[in-house]
Amino acid sequence: MEFSAQQIADLLEGEVEGNPEVRVNSLSKIEEGKTGTLSFLANPQYTPYLYETEASVVIVGKSFELEKPVSSTLVRVEDAYASFAKLLDIYNQLKHDKKGIDTQTSVSKTAEVGENAYIGAFSYVGDHSKIGDNVKIYPGTYIGDNVEVGDDTIIYSGVRIYSDCKIGKAVTLHSGVIVGGDGFGFAPNSGSYNKVAQIGNVIIEDHVEVGANTTIDRATLGSTIIRKGVKLDNLIQVAHNVEIGENTVIAAQSGIAGSTKIGKNCMIGGQVGIIGHLTIGNNVKIAAQSGLGNNIDDDQIVQGSPAFGIKEYKKSYVYFRKLAKMAEELEHLKQQVQSPDKS
Amino acid sequence: MEFSAQQIADLLEGEVEGNPEVRVNSLSKIEEGKTGTLSFLANPQYTPYLYETEASVVIVGKSFELEKPVSSTLVRVEDAYASFAKLLDIYNQLKHDKKGIDTQTSVSKTAEVGENAYIGAFSYVGDHSKIGDNVKIYPGTYIGDNVEVGDDTIIYSGVRIYSDCKIGKAVTLHSGVIVGGDGFGFAPNSGSYNKVAQIGNVIIEDHVEVGANTTIDRATLGSTIIRKGVKLDNLIQVAHNVEIGENTVIAAQSGIAGSTKIGKNCMIGGQVGIIGHLTIGNNVKIAAQSGLGNNIDDDQIVQGSPAFGIKEYKKSYVYFRKLAKMAEELEHLKQQVQSPDKS
Amino acid sequence: MEFSAQQIADLLEGEVEGNPEVRVNSLSKIEEGKTGTLSFLANPQYTPYLYETEASVVIVGKSFELEKPVSSTLVRVEDAYASFAKLLDIYNQLKHDKKGIDTQTSVSKTAEVGENAYIGAFSYVGDHSKIGDNVKIYPGTYIGDNVEVGDDTIIYSGVRIYSDCKIGKAVTLHSGVIVGGDGFGFAPNSGSYNKVAQIGNVIIEDHVEVGANTTIDRATLGSTIIRKGVKLDNLIQVAHNVEIGENTVIAAQSGIAGSTKIGKNCMIGGQVGIIGHLTIGNNVKIAAQSGLGNNIDDDQIVQGSPAFGIKEYKKSYVYFRKLAKMAEELEHLKQQVQSPDKS
Repeated sequence: MEFSAQQIADLLEGEVEGNPEVRVNSLSKIEEGKTGTLSFLANPQYTPYLYETEASVVIVGKSFELEKPVSSTLVRVEDAYASFAKLLDIYNQLKHDKKGIDTQTSVSKTAEVGENAYIGAFSYVGDHSKIGDNVKIYPGTYIGDNVEVGDDTIIYSGVRIYSDCKIGKAVTLHSGVIVGGDGFGFAPNSGSYNKVAQIGNVIIEDHVEVGANTTIDRATLGSTIIRKGVKLDNLIQVAHNVEIGENTVIAAQSGIAGSTKIGKNCMIGGQVGIIGHLTIGNNVKIAAQSGLGNNIDDDQIVQGSPAFGIKEYKKSYVYFRKLAKMAEELEHLKQQVQSPDKS
Repeated sequence: MEFSAQQIADLLEGEVEGNPEVRVNSLSKIEEGKTGTLSFLANPQYTPYLYETEASVVIVGKSFELEKPVSSTLVRVEDAYASFAKLLDIYNQLKHDKKGIDTQTSVSKTAEVGENAYIGAFSYVGDHSKIGDNVKIYPGTYIGDNVEVGDDTIIYSGVRIYSDCKIGKAVTLHSGVIVGGDGFGFAPNSGSYNKVAQIGNVIIEDHVEVGANTTIDRATLGSTIIRKGVKLDNLIQVAHNVEIGENTVIAAQSGIAGSTKIGKNCMIGGQVGIIGHLTIGNNVKIAAQSGLGNNIDDDQIVQGSPAFGIKEYKKSYVYFRKLAKMAEELEHLKQQVQSPDKS
Repeated sequence: MEFSAQQIADLLEGEVEGNPEVRVNSLSKIEEGKTGTLSFLANPQYTPYLYETEASVVIVGKSFELEKPVSSTLVRVEDAYASFAKLLDIYNQLKHDKKGIDTQTSVSKTAEVGENAYIGAFSYVGDHSKIGDNVKIYPGTYIGDNVEVGDDTIIYSGVRIYSDCKIGKAVTLHSGVIVGGDGFGFAPNSGSYNKVAQIGNVIIEDHVEVGANTTIDRATLGSTIIRKGVKLDNLIQVAHNVEIGENTVIAAQSGIAGSTKIGKNCMIGGQVGIIGHLTIGNNVKIAAQSGLGNNIDDDQIVQGSPAFGIKEYKKSYVYFRKLAKMAEELEHLKQQVQSPDKS
């Protein structure tokens, strides 16, 4: 994708100041602009960078007054920030403009594929699966039997969706996400373990985004459920029969053990661990690296492993840092009390 | 897969009560039963759900007496739980009924593939590799050169097995598992690092299950070994030259550094870290999020980072939570002792 | 790959002592030598193993004197260790001798592929991407549009590189690595979240190695940068706009949040978490499982969550282990001071 300054001006209903033929193929921050990139100046604080940037084209406001010459071609518009945001959207749409079913795919005859869908090379869609309209399935992806994928969902390269799972509309699954692997269920049997069949599924509702290499296990029976609007970062573990409430956000490398229910609108930091069979309320905040061993009521903010109130944790930690000094003082005091004359 | 109530009754040598033509295509808990699902009632505590469930078919005991009408078709059998378990097994067998080598695969001419094996689309099997009987290799999987896979093993979509690794019989590798990547070995060389060649392999013995996106590195020399019956959850890191003893179970996101040996029948919680070159005994239990920095004898139960006895850890943590109060008391006491009159 | 003792001797300019026809196909430690393997004896401490090993061929020094008969064929060379190292290099070169573009690939007509490159089956190379000379791309790999891969880089099976990312020369990316997934950026919008477009890229410089299933997110704008010589272990999370300095080494399962800059020559242990927008100096060492919440100056060594000086942490932790006893002593002392007569 390459555009001339004139094409960009036409798109934004702006005016070119400088060489209308100069071409750009990517976007940049104005302070990091290189030849061939397009940038914008909206915040006056960044004005000095305009005179230094190597960006080939810079979008500026109509009324912006130059104080010295610039090397970039300018495109003058009504609102520089809004115009740049508009370009971002166009850029993203262009990136996802792939359509059609590649010839090197394996799509079951019993699968249904919606209108305007893209299925990239070396992707597999199993029996009885239903792929919605405008769905983009990038190359090298596996969609098992009897899977449903809602309209406008983007599935990046290398996602694996086991059979019977349901993915909502406008969901984004990043590369390496595994949906519906067996839950970790084994029954002890005289020293070794028997596998407990995991025959449930995973349900991911609309507008969910799941980061790269995150794993979401299928339920033993019933469903592991990721509610509407949830955002999961990379390398997160969601065990069988977990339920994550609407619009909850979880940072990278956190793990949630089996059958735990997490409420709505929670914010969970990175590398948090939550044991199984807990209930976490709504609007709960959990600091990074915390370990949850008990239920948490609505609106709590916790830290520690095991976690408790974040203010108390921070206070305790202040004294943990001074613990050697405290121990010394205690020892000294003991001696004073036991042999007061020597003190 | 869809069955009528009559077909299920025939399979279980039971009798239909209600519409024998009603059809089901999945299993449900009785309290979550939806139209089109099959459920069962074995535990009397769940009897009330029988009258509310939307499950199309419910398996019940021969002698069970209805107290009011039900909307589900019943299938009456000798032992409802045993019959349901039997159906689970059949269900799982049906799920893994795929056979044959897909035309869109790349299987080396020098590879051997056993009877009744399945190799799905876009899977690759390298030179001199041996795939056992009844092995199921799902689509989009990579098996390098000189790899051995034992009979009855299931390899889900997107597993990557590097060259020279050996996988036992009846092993299950979930999607995204990486077996045999290079161990993390680098020798400092005046500021930068030289790679230490990692030319060993990984040996996974029989009846091991490995969860999604777990990584098991090849040995520098010799083998990284996962013994018989080990169960590894998702997103676990097993470094080069590690050995994990028989029937040890490790929860998600734990990591074991290079050359550490773990005994038999251990239970290791989630997000545990174990440093390199340690020896962990048999029957050891390690609490979630612990960090192991020293060898552990048989039968110990530990917690903390670094970890020590779990009872002691829990005791210390009780006082950690009260540390601010302890510090205050200590300060107060100090003043009392130093200026006794003022106290 | 199988070699006779004679072939090995010819390669190393050594002399065979024993059966020159015996064949080996892999390498072993002398104490673990099995039939069909090649080993070496360089360290005199290991001499006793020479008389017990089952290795078919053992490389020994010219002047080494046998004290009793051995079952292995010996290959006598000037310097046993140097010869073995030479064999290691040859072995690794042979492992990476794959060349050419497999017929079952999808390489865009607008992509450029260098001389002597290998692109394995079911791999995809997108529009306008440039693959350097001698690059090895293993089967089942995805390289998006407008990606650059430098000469001599090895990309193992199942790597996913999103569009616009730049990979340097002599880089190694292990299986399951995801480069350039969207950064975790969402703007709150009355209860739910709007995605912030992530239109930057990832730049990986020369001589970097990245372990299996590690994820490196693209920048919001600009670049996430992994500098020359960095070594990342498995399952690491690198968020958007992070920069990791030259020759820094990070162990498995660590995570670095958005926009944090890490200096040169740092050593970061496993399961470390670093929050966003920090600056970590050069030559910093961070103990495993630590959590970084503040900037760190050059040359610091830290531990804890939140982390502080490692010596202080270790001291505090000694007393944390004794905390119950300290609390008891404090209580006792309080009673003594408050009721001195009873003590």
